Amino acid sequence: MTQMRATVVHDGELSVRSVPRPEPGPGQLLIKVLRAGICGSDLHVREHSDELNEVVTELGYTTAMTPEQEIVLGHELLGSVVAYGPQTRGRWKPGTSVTALPVLRTDGAIHMVGFDVDSPGGFAEYCVVQEAFTFPVPEEVEPELAVFTEPLAVALHAVRRGAVSARRPAVVIGCGPIGLAVILMLKAQGVKTVVASDLSPARRALAVECGADVVVDPRESSPWDAYRQRGPVTSLPDYLSFGIDAMQVVRRIPLLPWETVLLNADRLGQSPTGPVVFECVGVPGMLEQIMTAAPLHTRVVVVGVCMQPDTIRPAVAIHKEIDLRFVFGYDPAEFARTLELIAGGKVDPSPLHTGTVGLDGVAQAFSDLADPETHAKILVDPWA
Amino acid sequence: MTQMRATVVHDGELSVRSVPRPEPGPGQLLIKVLRAGICGSDLHVREHSDELNEVVTELGYTTAMTPEQEIVLGHELLGSVVAYGPQTRGRWKPGTSVTALPVLRTDGAIHMVGFDVDSPGGFAEYCVVQEAFTFPVPEEVEPELAVFTEPLAVALHAVRRGAVSARRPAVVIGCGPIGLAVILMLKAQGVKTVVASDLSPARRALAVECGADVVVDPRESSPWDAYRQRGPVTSLPDYLSFGIDAMQVVRRIPLLPWETVLLNADRLGQSPTGPVVFECVGVPGMLEQIMTAAPLHTRVVVVGVCMQPDTIRPAVAIHKEIDLRFVFGYDPAEFARTLELIAGGKVDPSPLHTGTVGLDGVAQAFSDLADPETHAKILVDPWA
Repeated sequence: MTQMRATVVHDGELSVRSVPRPEPGPGQLLIKVLRAGICGSDLHVREHSDELNEVVTELGYTTAMTPEQEIVLGHELLGSVVAYGPQTRGRWKPGTSVTALPVLRTDGAIHMVGFDVDSPGGFAEYCVVQEAFTFPVPEEVEPELAVFTEPLAVALHAVRRGAVSARRPAVVIGCGPIGLAVILMLKAQGVKTVVASDLSPARRALAVECGADVVVDPRESSPWDAYRQRGPVTSLPDYLSFGIDAMQVVRRIPLLPWETVLLNADRLGQSPTGPVVFECVGVPGMLEQIMTAAPLHTRVVVVGVCMQPDTIRPAVAIHKEIDLRFVFGYDPAEFARTLELIAGGKVDPSPLHTGTVGLDGVAQAFSDLADPETHAKILVDPWA
Repeated sequence: MTQMRATVVHDGELSVRSVPRPEPGPGQLLIKVLRAGICGSDLHVREHSDELNEVVTELGYTTAMTPEQEIVLGHELLGSVVAYGPQTRGRWKPGTSVTALPVLRTDGAIHMVGFDVDSPGGFAEYCVVQEAFTFPVPEEVEPELAVFTEPLAVALHAVRRGAVSARRPAVVIGCGPIGLAVILMLKAQGVKTVVASDLSPARRALAVECGADVVVDPRESSPWDAYRQRGPVTSLPDYLSFGIDAMQVVRRIPLLPWETVLLNADRLGQSPTGPVVFECVGVPGMLEQIMTAAPLHTRVVVVGVCMQPDTIRPAVAIHKEIDLRFVFGYDPAEFARTLELIAGGKVDPSPLHTGTVGLDGVAQAFSDLADPETHAKILVDPWA
């Protein structure tokens, strides 16, 4: 069996080993890994695979990682086509650069690439991906940009789930790699006012580079103040008072049928007065903190993955008519569109890229990423 | 000062007293109360006004009730016009039946009618309402139906916030008055499959009367089983597998630009595979129970008011891409449309009406409503 070098995690420790090169099964292809990004999820599952397992088993997956297994992490993938397995169409020529959704189907079972012993990830010389989920990267696109397709697709999906509009302000809580990617995508979608909040000065500087219009240190000022300057109706009593005034006006003009009024309101979008907030931190207490501070009619898109149980006050959420939209991943069309946006220069992820390491450097990179002042996204080049 | 009879709550006890008849202020009018409905909120605040106060103070209201005050409850109002205050238009002739949103604005401050010592409610012979928020009731509509405008408007608002569609199944958890009202409105909006769940046989019978298509006792069968028979893609692995098959098909046909694919997906509505669930119970643990059992892409409209802090597992919500949409009240257009629906016979709330009492009977009615086998909605006729 052909061997390859890979960085494996075993009992929470990262080390470079020689492991069997995976073989592409039906519908799959083998890529030579050109770059793989290190994601916050990688940092988390390295030490807390038990928490992840509990969730994925409950969700219906047949496999899950355990600490004693040797796992090859890495699900932000860019590689060049090497060989095809059976029942493939051979759509991209060998040597073509492709990026791929990190999902494999083997014997009918779904595996998440880089989270499963049966689907080793991209911190390795080679990796197997599903042909249907690969997308060719135009030759002129630098690998350092193309490898951002996966994390930026997460952001595009979050922004779409947030149903943002140009004039509705967006607030991004937490400017780690995903928060920064959300800022990039909000600006690419034409959102006029993006307020970003992070404790770290370095992260706030990156938020500005990514296009945030207002950047706050939450210890010094509130992201909601920046919002309130742009939308006066932020409390329930103010909103009801506005309703009384509006009805006094409405009754002076010839009335449309109420059904028509409602149909038009639906068409224009409901609850348009509050901001769209992107929670990109993912620790217990963030949701409650946001819902307590946020104005009426706030829509919260929950992007940060909080693995612990969390406590909220539904009565506050109810009286403010808050939406919580939990998001996960993206669909293939969003993934493909993200690659187009990067390739076309509409979205430039280069501010996020703060370092590149070889397989030997992954362990150190995991440590370095703990300090927000130094790094945002470190890429792995297995051939460096 | 003219006196009137009213049922007041004081230190958690209900009794009939002679109290000053309220005077309509600027923009307000006095109604003779014809009927007032007893709501679950009334039952709750009678004994837990402290919990409500904490929330309303935080939301920016200037007044809140305290146990030692004498409060006239009752915010589901139907009355006939008696007299107008200053700065009114006198739009409805004295004697006209009107229903009203339970909101008053006095000296610029907003008061919730029936929850505030400054805005006494409908468990009394007379009541003051805001002219801009009154709607005339056609003469042919029975008062026993018209008084349901308020609770049914809550349901219409919840159904609209749920963005329901005819073919997307709806699941109603809890068939108290609000759950039943939601069932009525779901059927009025043309939702084909409405699954309802309640522990009480009497409530389940009422759910059938209100139009529920499938009714389950959650101790015997799961509302999700009834749903799953109608939608096969309910787990994340199944969904990803479906994505692989879909991409294999998509790649055989000439491709639209990905941007067009996404724009069309937006137009068709996102995440269309899961049901829309209406949580109409409002006790801690319900959200977590629903999110654990619900299929992928479930949208939960939170109508039940849970006053205690509640614990959820965000990681489960994230992996299932669940939406939580908290709802409160309705807007004036929804209120007016609800009255139209009742007046036009499109919605018939009569199954909910299980009793009528005079002011002397309110205390007993509050006790009786604790038993779901006997009552759904008891109306108060202050002149009986």
